Amino acid sequence: MTYCVGLKVNEGLVLLSDTRTNAGFDNISTYKKTYIFERPGKAVVTILAAGSLSVTQTVLAKIAEQVDDVVGVGSSILECNSMLQVVEHIGDILSNTSADIHEKMTRMSDKITASASFIVAGQIKGGELRMYLVYPEGNFIEATADTPFLQIGEHKYGKPILDRVVEPEISLDDARKAALLSMDSTLRSNLSVGMPLDLTLIRKGECKVHQSVRIEDGDEDFTEMSRAWSQVLRQGFSSMNI
Amino acid sequence: MTYCVGLKVNEGLVLLSDTRTNAGFDNISTYKKTYIFERPGKAVVTILAAGSLSVTQTVLAKIAEQVDDVVGVGSSILECNSMLQVVEHIGDILSNTSADIHEKMTRMSDKITASASFIVAGQIKGGELRMYLVYPEGNFIEATADTPFLQIGEHKYGKPILDRVVEPEISLDDARKAALLSMDSTLRSNLSVGMPLDLTLIRKGECKVHQSVRIEDGDEDFTEMSRAWSQVLRQGFSSMNI
Repeated sequence: MTYCVGLKVNEGLVLLSDTRTNAGFDNISTYKKTYIFERPGKAVVTILAAGSLSVTQTVLAKIAEQVDDVVGVGSSILECNSMLQVVEHIGDILSNTSADIHEKMTRMSDKITASASFIVAGQIKGGELRMYLVYPEGNFIEATADTPFLQIGEHKYGKPILDRVVEPEISLDDARKAALLSMDSTLRSNLSVGMPLDLTLIRKGECKVHQSVRIEDGDEDFTEMSRAWSQVLRQGFSSMNI
Repeated sequence: MTYCVGLKVNEGLVLLSDTRTNAGFDNISTYKKTYIFERPGKAVVTILAAGSLSVTQTVLAKIAEQVDDVVGVGSSILECNSMLQVVEHIGDILSNTSADIHEKMTRMSDKITASASFIVAGQIKGGELRMYLVYPEGNFIEATADTPFLQIGEHKYGKPILDRVVEPEISLDDARKAALLSMDSTLRSNLSVGMPLDLTLIRKGECKVHQSVRIEDGDEDFTEMSRAWSQVLRQGFSSMNI
C-alpha cells in the first residue's frame, strides 16, 4: 500500500508520500513515489503515485522521457500552458498505459488487475497554483477551498486530523505540520505504509520547488514531532472531563 | 456501513455501536446493532453486529429464540458455562446462517455475497470477563492485554486515537471516553456511519449490564465532547512548534 497526501493552502502546496511498496507481507521494498519536474521560474509539476508499480513506473517513465526529449516523443508536461493541460496529458498517458497492461493481464486471467492513481500539483507561469487527483481511468478532480487536501492510497487513518485543522487560510508551515501528523497516524496504524518519507513544498507564484527533503527512519525532528503529538493527544484526552 | 468498537479494560467492558444501515446512498435506515442478553448476576453477553442485515438479523433472531426458548430449540448462550462456549455457539450459528444465505445467493449470481462479523463480550458467573471478534466464517479471536480493543465495520478512521490512549489500566470512564472519541472521528469522516449510538458498560464481576444508553443525534453531552475534542486537537496542533 501507500499513503500520499497533498495540501493546497493560500501560501502554496505541501506534498508528502511514504516509500513502501509490497507484494505480500514478505516482499516489501522502498520506492520513491514523489516525482518532481521543473523549469525554475517557469513551471513546476509534482506527481505523487499510488497503485501498482508496473503502472506508476511506466507512466512516470513516459512523462520523464518526454520532458528529457530523449527520443523526440513530442511535447511534455513542462511545455503545457496550464495545469489543466498538464493533468489532461497525464490522464491520457495513465489511461493508455492502464489499458495496455489490462489487456496483457486479461490474456492470463480475468481476476488480476493493475491500476494506479496520482496527485498532480504545481504551477505554470501565468497560471494559478493547482492540485488534482487523477483516478485510475484517467479522469480527475481538483482540490478546492472547501476541500483543500487530496489523498491517495491508505487514506483513512490520516483523514480525521486533516478534517479538523486544514483550511486554505493556514500557513504553509502549519500545512506541512498537518501533512506530517496525518502521515504519522497512518504509519502507526498500518504496516504497509513505511518510512522514509518524501516531503515537497512549493510556494505560490515561485513556479519552483521551495523545499524537497527525504525524512529518513529515525529522523530526530520527525520522531520528536510524533512524540509531542502523542503527548498532546494523551494530555488532551486526560484533561477532558466528559 | 457500520462502526462498532469494544474495549476491555481491567475494570470492565465498553461497547459502542452506531445505527446506520444503507443499501446505497439513497437508501439509509436506522437499525440497532447492539444486542444484550442477561440474567443479572449470572450471565451477561453483549453482541455488536456489522455486515449484511439479512445475516445479522437472522443470527440474532436465532440466538434470541433460543434464549427465550420460544420453540424449545435447545440450549441458549445464557446456559453456556463459559464465554468460550458462548462465542463458539455464536460462531456456529453464524457459519450455518452464512452458508445457507450464500447457497441461496449463488443460485442467482456468483457476484453477490452477504457476510457479517460480530463483537461478543461479557461474563458468565465463575468465569472471566471476555471479549471476542467473530469473523464471517465463524472463527474468532480474543482481545488481550496487548490489544485491549476490537473493531468491526468502518474501523480505520477511529483507530489512531485508540492506538494512542487505550491500555488495560485506564479507568472504565476513560475507556468510555476513548470509545466515544473514536466514534466521533468516524462519524465526521464517513457518511455511512451515523447517529444515534448505543453505548453499553459492563463492570467486571457484576455479570450484568452496568449502563445501557442510546445517545441521540444532538445529544448535548456528546456534542460538547465532540466540540471539546476538536478544540484539544486544534490547540495542541497550534502549540506544537515543530
